[in-house]
Amino acid sequence: MNLKIAVLPGDGIGPEVILQAKKALYAIGEVYNHEFVFEEALMGAIAIDKTGNPLPEQTLNLCLNTDAVLFGAIGDPKYDNNPNAKVRPEQGLLKLRKELGLFANIRPIKPYKSLIDASPLKREIIEGADFTIFRELTGGAYFGAKTLNEEGTHASDLCEYSEEEITRIAHLAFKSAQNRRKKLTMVDKANVLETSRLWRKVVQKVSADYPDVALDFLFVDNAAMQLILNPKQFDVILTENLFGDILSDEASVITGSIGLLASASLGEKNALFEPIHGSYPQAKGKNIANPIASILSAAMLLEHFGLFKEANVIYQAVEKAIEYKVVTVDLKPDSKFGTNEVGEFVSNFI
Amino acid sequence: MNLKIAVLPGDGIGPEVILQAKKALYAIGEVYNHEFVFEEALMGAIAIDKTGNPLPEQTLNLCLNTDAVLFGAIGDPKYDNNPNAKVRPEQGLLKLRKELGLFANIRPIKPYKSLIDASPLKREIIEGADFTIFRELTGGAYFGAKTLNEEGTHASDLCEYSEEEITRIAHLAFKSAQNRRKKLTMVDKANVLETSRLWRKVVQKVSADYPDVALDFLFVDNAAMQLILNPKQFDVILTENLFGDILSDEASVITGSIGLLASASLGEKNALFEPIHGSYPQAKGKNIANPIASILSAAMLLEHFGLFKEANVIYQAVEKAIEYKVVTVDLKPDSKFGTNEVGEFVSNFI
Ligand SMILES: CC(C)[C@H](C(=O)O)[C@@H](O)C(=O)O
Ligand SMILES: CC(C)[C@H](C(=O)O)[C@@H](O)C(=O)O
Repeated sequence: MNLKIAVLPGDGIGPEVILQAKKALYAIGEVYNHEFVFEEALMGAIAIDKTGNPLPEQTLNLCLNTDAVLFGAIGDPKYDNNPNAKVRPEQGLLKLRKELGLFANIRPIKPYKSLIDASPLKREIIEGADFTIFRELTGGAYFGAKTLNEEGTHASDLCEYSEEEITRIAHLAFKSAQNRRKKLTMVDKANVLETSRLWRKVVQKVSADYPDVALDFLFVDNAAMQLILNPKQFDVILTENLFGDILSDEASVITGSIGLLASASLGEKNALFEPIHGSYPQAKGKNIANPIASILSAAMLLEHFGLFKEANVIYQAVEKAIEYKVVTVDLKPDSKFGTNEVGEFVSNFI
Repeated sequence: MNLKIAVLPGDGIGPEVILQAKKALYAIGEVYNHEFVFEEALMGAIAIDKTGNPLPEQTLNLCLNTDAVLFGAIGDPKYDNNPNAKVRPEQGLLKLRKELGLFANIRPIKPYKSLIDASPLKREIIEGADFTIFRELTGGAYFGAKTLNEEGTHASDLCEYSEEEITRIAHLAFKSAQNRRKKLTMVDKANVLETSRLWRKVVQKVSADYPDVALDFLFVDNAAMQLILNPKQFDVILTENLFGDILSDEASVITGSIGLLASASLGEKNALFEPIHGSYPQAKGKNIANPIASILSAAMLLEHFGLFKEANVIYQAVEKAIEYKVVTVDLKPDSKFGTNEVGEFVSNFI
């Protein structure tokens, strides 16, 4: 297979972890005779520094015209504590999601056997947990109108959803549930929010097409609690953009480290793969960032193109690295291995 | 001291747990020579059933003219899965919060020594955790304009904040931090939301008055993760309405049961005290609901009026109940004790 892949390393630890994902893909390409052509481009704080624009035209065009995008991380503290910054790195990522129409962000959560004890949760709580979060990615408060009055004393964010936006991701989530344990949990705040009530109504409607999938509903406050009390109850979780952002970071604790979690963002035509961790600026350039989330994002990319065998080899390699404790300090505080060594281990295993 | 207390038992398990809180207050009144006069009123689904209105005029008037409100729980599943219901129990509570101007909801989180093992989190993670969440309670998406178009295919919720709304709760939170470990963590999503950027700006401004309090910022997704990874890092958490709703339910896992968490909602003139758990309709009338959160809400009420010694007696009684395992099934699955027995133990101890 020939794939043209846009690579956006982004900010902070993005470049170093993405390098390891590329190495894994190169190795797969060699062994299984695929041609992966990578083209790098700027996005985020680094793009602002170099071009003034968090998502330069050129980057967007590249992404629109490739088979897939592999993305690292975004964000820089110099913008975070400056509420007056006019241009912010995150705008690049949000614009990219919107322009590529990446409406579904898929985040699988499953602890590794040999890492069960790395979680702050007790073994009996997480052993056997295995669920996937479907987070809507191009709607909600992320993209609604924002206002700030002239005096800077009043601000607003509009959360909006349409039936169509809910329907399309609901179908993906129900289909995924059909291939899993046939349970879908919709998370919302329907006792307070109008958008949540629309979600509930539309999801109930879509569920008629999937009579074999059991549907239930949780309020987001309760869901945030249930994820920790009893994560095994979940199979597929479906939710709106902001709730999905919060719940998926929270759910990372089940696996022991957010450095293990990959995600796929899918649209009608385009697909982007990224680790769910952020830019982690404190770790930048220190060879301590966990590359596994990025490597697994590469595996999700392969699956997306039907290369299941190849993806599986990556999953196995990662499992071996974890089993042999070739992991970074987030998983083993006294580890001697860094970003590079973990990446090497994985690509050598392939 | 003479106190007139409006009692709103509400829905589900509300009436049975509130009864135990009243018993504790009666006992305190007798022993310490205070006169607590209770007046009950309707709110929630039960008020809809009886009057068509989730917050009848009479209830509101009563609450406006008492020293404090003791509230149970609200919500009924018959409304939750009916996105078309025009009147909903929660509207009663939201209206009451707004009309009483209860802008600050205060939720203390601290595990009981003898319950450390009841948490899904490991002992070493939670032992020593002790923080308080300040949740803004009368603004944000809860109260902004809501729309649903005529076809029922498009909905919106507006999240709004003004400098004034942020300033007043920020002062309370900073003052609390001054009396604690002098650390305040503001939780927001300033990399995406305009309202969050306003929060950050205003809180930075207010912080100038509290140079002895260390201020830091966390994005809400990261905060949801940090609460579980390392809850000991927190002292006072300050956040907007919806984030506070989610994070405080999540944080309940640290104590082992949401049935242990009380909250105070304060305004300029009024004060309301409530357990943070909901109406838990499945448990209604079964004598299995944990009354401790309600009893502790009564203790917070006493503290609010400066009755610290009296509040302390309740805290001690609750600790004894827990130590002697006179607790409900949420804390001890094979417990023989019910709502009533736990309440009796506490009021007898006083
Ligand atoms: C960087 C930020 C804008 C982003 C988000 O909130 O979507 C990140 O947290 C994520 O989850 O991908
Ligand atoms: C019942 C509901 C409206 C309420 C809220 O979301 O504020 C509850 O969850 C709470 O936290 O007090």
